[in-house]
Amino acid sequence: MIEQVRPAVDAGRYAVKRIVGDVLTVEATVFKDGHDLVAGRIRYRPPGARRWHVAPMTYERDFDRCRGSFVVDRLGQWTFTVDAWTDRFETWRVDLTTKAAAGVDVHLDLLSGAALIDEAAAATHGRDAQTLARGATALRHTTSPLAERVATALGADLDTLMRRHLPPIDLVTAAGEFPVLVDRERASFGAWYELFPRSQASRPGAHGTFADTERQLPRLADLGFDVVYLAPIHPIGTTHRKGRDNALTANADDVGSPWAIGGAPGGHTAVEPRLGTLDDFDHLARAARALGMEIALDYALQCSPDHPWLRDHPEWFFTQPDGSIKHAENPPKVYEDIYPPNFWCDDREGLWNACVDILRFWIGHGVRVFRVDNPHTKPFAFWEWAIAEIRRDHPDVIFLAEAFTRPARMMGLAKLGFTQSYTYFTWRNSAWELRAYLTELAHGAMAEYFRPNFFTNTPDILHEYLQTGGPAAFRVRLLLAATLSPSYGIYAGFELCEHVPREDGSEEYLHSEKYEIRQRRWDAPQSLDADIRAINRVRRENPALRTLTNVRFHDTEDDAVLFYHRYAPGNDLLGIVNVDPHQVHETMVHVPLGDLGLTEDEPFGVEDLLTGARYTWQGTRNYVRLDPAERPGHLLRVIRAVERAP
Amino acid sequence: MIEQVRPAVDAGRYAVKRIVGDVLTVEATVFKDGHDLVAGRIRYRPPGARRWHVAPMTYERDFDRCRGSFVVDRLGQWTFTVDAWTDRFETWRVDLTTKAAAGVDVHLDLLSGAALIDEAAAATHGRDAQTLARGATALRHTTSPLAERVATALGADLDTLMRRHLPPIDLVTAAGEFPVLVDRERASFGAWYELFPRSQASRPGAHGTFADTERQLPRLADLGFDVVYLAPIHPIGTTHRKGRDNALTANADDVGSPWAIGGAPGGHTAVEPRLGTLDDFDHLARAARALGMEIALDYALQCSPDHPWLRDHPEWFFTQPDGSIKHAENPPKVYEDIYPPNFWCDDREGLWNACVDILRFWIGHGVRVFRVDNPHTKPFAFWEWAIAEIRRDHPDVIFLAEAFTRPARMMGLAKLGFTQSYTYFTWRNSAWELRAYLTELAHGAMAEYFRPNFFTNTPDILHEYLQTGGPAAFRVRLLLAATLSPSYGIYAGFELCEHVPREDGSEEYLHSEKYEIRQRRWDAPQSLDADIRAINRVRRENPALRTLTNVRFHDTEDDAVLFYHRYAPGNDLLGIVNVDPHQVHETMVHVPLGDLGLTEDEPFGVEDLLTGARYTWQGTRNYVRLDPAERPGHLLRVIRAVERAP
Repeated sequence: MIEQVRPAVDAGRYAVKRIVGDVLTVEATVFKDGHDLVAGRIRYRPPGARRWHVAPMTYERDFDRCRGSFVVDRLGQWTFTVDAWTDRFETWRVDLTTKAAAGVDVHLDLLSGAALIDEAAAATHGRDAQTLARGATALRHTTSPLAERVATALGADLDTLMRRHLPPIDLVTAAGEFPVLVDRERASFGAWYELFPRSQASRPGAHGTFADTERQLPRLADLGFDVVYLAPIHPIGTTHRKGRDNALTANADDVGSPWAIGGAPGGHTAVEPRLGTLDDFDHLARAARALGMEIALDYALQCSPDHPWLRDHPEWFFTQPDGSIKHAENPPKVYEDIYPPNFWCDDREGLWNACVDILRFWIGHGVRVFRVDNPHTKPFAFWEWAIAEIRRDHPDVIFLAEAFTRPARMMGLAKLGFTQSYTYFTWRNSAWELRAYLTELAHGAMAEYFRPNFFTNTPDILHEYLQTGGPAAFRVRLLLAATLSPSYGIYAGFELCEHVPREDGSEEYLHSEKYEIRQRRWDAPQSLDADIRAINRVRRENPALRTLTNVRFHDTEDDAVLFYHRYAPGNDLLGIVNVDPHQVHETMVHVPLGDLGLTEDEPFGVEDLLTGARYTWQGTRNYVRLDPAERPGHLLRVIRAVERAP
Repeated sequence: MIEQVRPAVDAGRYAVKRIVGDVLTVEATVFKDGHDLVAGRIRYRPPGARRWHVAPMTYERDFDRCRGSFVVDRLGQWTFTVDAWTDRFETWRVDLTTKAAAGVDVHLDLLSGAALIDEAAAATHGRDAQTLARGATALRHTTSPLAERVATALGADLDTLMRRHLPPIDLVTAAGEFPVLVDRERASFGAWYELFPRSQASRPGAHGTFADTERQLPRLADLGFDVVYLAPIHPIGTTHRKGRDNALTANADDVGSPWAIGGAPGGHTAVEPRLGTLDDFDHLARAARALGMEIALDYALQCSPDHPWLRDHPEWFFTQPDGSIKHAENPPKVYEDIYPPNFWCDDREGLWNACVDILRFWIGHGVRVFRVDNPHTKPFAFWEWAIAEIRRDHPDVIFLAEAFTRPARMMGLAKLGFTQSYTYFTWRNSAWELRAYLTELAHGAMAEYFRPNFFTNTPDILHEYLQTGGPAAFRVRLLLAATLSPSYGIYAGFELCEHVPREDGSEEYLHSEKYEIRQRRWDAPQSLDADIRAINRVRRENPALRTLTNVRFHDTEDDAVLFYHRYAPGNDLLGIVNVDPHQVHETMVHVPLGDLGLTEDEPFGVEDLLTGARYTWQGTRNYVRLDPAERPGHLLRVIRAVERAP
């Protein structure tokens, strides 16, 4: 019986996710009746391969567990399964060894072994077959001393050949094949920056362009960002255009929401003329690549009343009883500036292909990262198909799901193919909430398929914590996002501590950039640029910050102080954050000496990677004092004694 | 998407287990994109039925969870699955209600609703179709007041008919069908007593018979046992017969091990002539039934050298290179008195059928309970086939697996069909071990398929705890076995505190009854009969002791005192056991007031069901003093204030 094959999501229905170059460790519970030993192997198939490869597994009898591994060294969808069989020769070897040691008569055992060797010899030919035949003869050679025959039987040469050639007569295979989605590293590790290109003009009041945006790239590269995510760049509808602060009626000079996609110049494959041309976009994307960054586009499958699809393909939308096309609603709210496609319309095939063609179009313009707007309002079946369709030809494409919805739906989208996902991070502000949420993400079933991207804020979410916590709150959230999740992001303005909500109790920004141009001065005194630059540098230099599942939380003696350990070979980091932006907290943190290979009486060094300050600590309990006005947390690298010796 | 269907074992590969009359509660995670509501239902099929039945499910949107139930009122294998679909009418109703309350124009919504009603009307006929058609007309009746049309739309009559007739156009079904094995109550609840019939003679030194055994039944019935399990009753081989204390050579008057099955008088379908005849056995079985008990037989698929199969079917066994039939071995140990069948021999079909025919034979003699000897040394595939084969015609048959082996194999046997299983209970003697083990059994994945039977001792297992703990140890283990597991058992001699091992460090009995006749005087002063009688009475009277999964452990302030709560409607029991047989322990137990519906300042009564003593307790912490010399534990029934009022 082969059970509990790991890693697997829903018994192989969905893929586990890995990064290219990862070692994939496979385990399975393997057992049979009686006292025979079993053996197992992994069979796996790289993307596009027809032939199965094989990787050996070790067998831990006490746990009935087989374990092996292979390297996923290519992008795309891999498949593996587990085979197992009775290890007849090893069983025989172990029994023979035991009996010989106990002085039991082994004449018949040697003859049984010879029969096994005959079987292996018959299954091969040439030199191996001859060697095996000689072995069988030696075991049967009754005039040789028994000890000599036993030594031959247990010899390494015979063992090697028997492992190679003895047919596994009762080989069974695990139920199902188990997929593994292998992505490039950016799928799990990256610092994101969201901006509105139209806000990037340097001339006051001007509508920014791709060229203006391009001029901002050096600053973002200097700050250490990897992905620059642009709010939608397509023509914006004019019919029912929203005014500033989401006003139902727009003034003539209002620019409208870029999520009201489509106008006279075109739809999802066009660019808003005021931003420039497609060539300008290509230039911007090339400039980003030259700086080691890449552009992410917003993929929002909805149409303004002026989108060409409404004219050319009214059959792709919902129709009202009066024959009109139905706009979006979330009763009792109505959204007259937005029309959702009907993914189950009669021309489903035409619509779905058109949607995927949008992605192909931008991929043709060098885009490899898509932030998908509200995927939970489109059919899951569409996403599973569309993402597989794109990734078949472009396995380097990354899809970030913006699904702020109930857990089952967020997990469902991640399972069926989204590369990474927005999370509840913005709403997890206390230490215990963060600890519980990270434990679920890093150590629960989700860890195999759900890759979080911790955004500190978005154009839709300005959490009360930021509204009321002052600059310290921003620094706390930056530190947490960047050191708790390998992928994190900020939306422009965060670094200036923009914190004024539309009204009390709202998470919307006052004068939201969704509805107007918002130019900013980056050299403002409250700027967090120095913090951001430092933290992104530390992220790149410390491998412990590149994976999610290596986080372990440890105790402090103050509920407002979060303490966590992240590790990679030779890289142990201790994060200590005072999540109370209003008060100094001093407490003792309980260092996991055992995990660090340290003892109670051995001093060790810690270096704050953000300030360069060094401290000598000792034992489990160590003192920290965190003043939010100065520094909300430490990110300490553990320096062992051996390193300190000059 | 339908996920996480519960209850299920390995996603439906194996059956969950229930008792006839149980309410089976089914849950599933059900979700789709967008804001539409979904609905779910259970489809289930009783044993042998071709038609599916349907049970409704409720839908908790916040958890994306559907839940429903049905009663499994017949023995055998049931099957269920879950269907789900978009609840179009309910979605429309909720939206209409919201919009109407907010004063939004609902003219078009009424027309959309009318179209839905048309769809339902077209799917039915007669009176319902006419009522629906009238409803659609009313909704479309633009000259009626809007409020009146909305009221019609939201009326209960329309709702009922729409639920009945609107076709679920996007109905999907969970992946897989989920089996449920439904047994009679004895499968999970019963007190077992193991004895050797040959030891039951009253005349000293005589070989006991079925008739002698029958004379012991009234005592066992009086003690409250439900199942009398007999060591094998078949002819015992004489070749290589084991002598007393497992001596390799038997004396002429040695009776041999009854597990060395088969001799001149026959094999597994014969009875040892010294025990009597098949008619005598039938008489014994009838007598047991008349006393409300039943006989369990041992099913040990192995043969003595004298078993007729070795002569008639040598092809069913393993052959050595010298042509001889291979006896059992566990290197370096050899068992020359036992020959295991080769379940993968060329005549597999003949052997497997012969094995099942043994069961059919004894079922023909009224036996419905089999204790299966060492099932883990026979192929799992055999058991899955054999148990299904028998249960198809006899769903009341119970198979107890005696597999003392590694967890994966014990769980494997339970999954593929064994009704109940021996456990590690004998080796779990400290309070923390018991708490951890019971938590795993009652609250882990095993709870769905692994039914424990807690034997205090067996002819193979006399634990050191019993060897050294004196009579108190026996009373502790009896109390624990009988109140922690709905099924429990003792092997004869336990009630006399037999505790002498073969040698230090051994779990074998000195002068083991496996190899000799062992007559006993039941009126010995150290007899635990009074304890056993009391505890079996309490078990029958208190429904809280009939199920496994209702146990919760709570804290005490002494590591040697185990404290647990078992509950059933109106029946809250508190078990408190001092597991240290050598010392008096006094401590405070932490009563789960919340679980009991009690408050900190409200006194409540507890009655010791074993002694009748009553105490008044109050608050969380309450005092107990347990002297192992007097009474190793309490089994308290909670008496609430309302009961105490006369």
